[in-house]
Amino acid sequence: MAPRGFTLWFTGLSGAGKSTLSQAVAAELQARGHRVERLDGDEFRQRLSRGLGFSKEDRDENVRRIGFVARLLSRNGAVAIAAAISPYRELRDEVRRDHESRFVEIFVDCPLDVLVKRDPKGLYAKALQGEITNFSGVNDPYEAPTAPEITVHTERESVAVSRDVIVRWLEAQHLI
Amino acid sequence: MAPRGFTLWFTGLSGAGKSTLSQAVAAELQARGHRVERLDGDEFRQRLSRGLGFSKEDRDENVRRIGFVARLLSRNGAVAIAAAISPYRELRDEVRRDHESRFVEIFVDCPLDVLVKRDPKGLYAKALQGEITNFSGVNDPYEAPTAPEITVHTERESVAVSRDVIVRWLEAQHLI
Repeated sequence: MAPRGFTLWFTGLSGAGKSTLSQAVAAELQARGHRVERLDGDEFRQRLSRGLGFSKEDRDENVRRIGFVARLLSRNGAVAIAAAISPYRELRDEVRRDHESRFVEIFVDCPLDVLVKRDPKGLYAKALQGEITNFSGVNDPYEAPTAPEITVHTERESVAVSRDVIVRWLEAQHLI
Repeated sequence: MAPRGFTLWFTGLSGAGKSTLSQAVAAELQARGHRVERLDGDEFRQRLSRGLGFSKEDRDENVRRIGFVARLLSRNGAVAIAAAISPYRELRDEVRRDHESRFVEIFVDCPLDVLVKRDPKGLYAKALQGEITNFSGVNDPYEAPTAPEITVHTERESVAVSRDVIVRWLEAQHLI
């Protein structure tokens, strides 16, 4: 029997910990023998979305493309792990609807004021000063999920704790 | 043991039979229990390459994207079947180099004069009259493979014969 594929879709603000957490989950699932493919929003923009910017239309198109590839991978038995801000609820729901395999939305929740304080790359500072526009959560919308399968709170949980919350949920759902 | 994935890359002029033949091969491999994903050039342009045209630069980017997705699928155990004109040798070779799994180039060969005579969509007529520009083989280059793994001759072989040539080659290589 070939394994069942599914998609883990990490959504959240810039700096909330989507990439780090998705890497930790990917490592754990790989160690358990799953075929895992990470689709990181930033890398994806270089490989499949060159030329797209950060307008709503371009963001939507980028999310649609990540969703399309996640759908292909997961319906072929892989675990597709997408980590992208994906700020618009409607687009995340569209990607969910298009999936033939299980779609698991994971809200990587971290309060904006914590992100502004951390700000390792100085992006929030620039956005607050208006030097960066279309920055989700500052001068562009971020629509938090209303009914995600899983929510993790990265301002008060370690990466290991958030990872285990996700892994235990997947076990309980018999996905792994 | 999870199955080994690989990529079948059909290249050839418009109307040579890439889509039809790739569908026939996909059906046969599916019937044998393989996970198969077809990446059709035309559908791909709508899903992942909206906004790209037919200049060399845009064609290259489109082929790169198909190659990227084929690579992800095949390294996760699926058979990725790409059918796209992919007229430039350098780009096909780049996609081949990027692959971690086996890359099988299939030249769907059909003489231009036969295609011009058939021309069910009237595209060659329009290209010859200059109504369509950047049409591979007429007013845009098509660089035939110099060392494809497989060549099929659709002007004198039935779809079933070409399909069987490919399937037997894959058997001989122990890919299926």
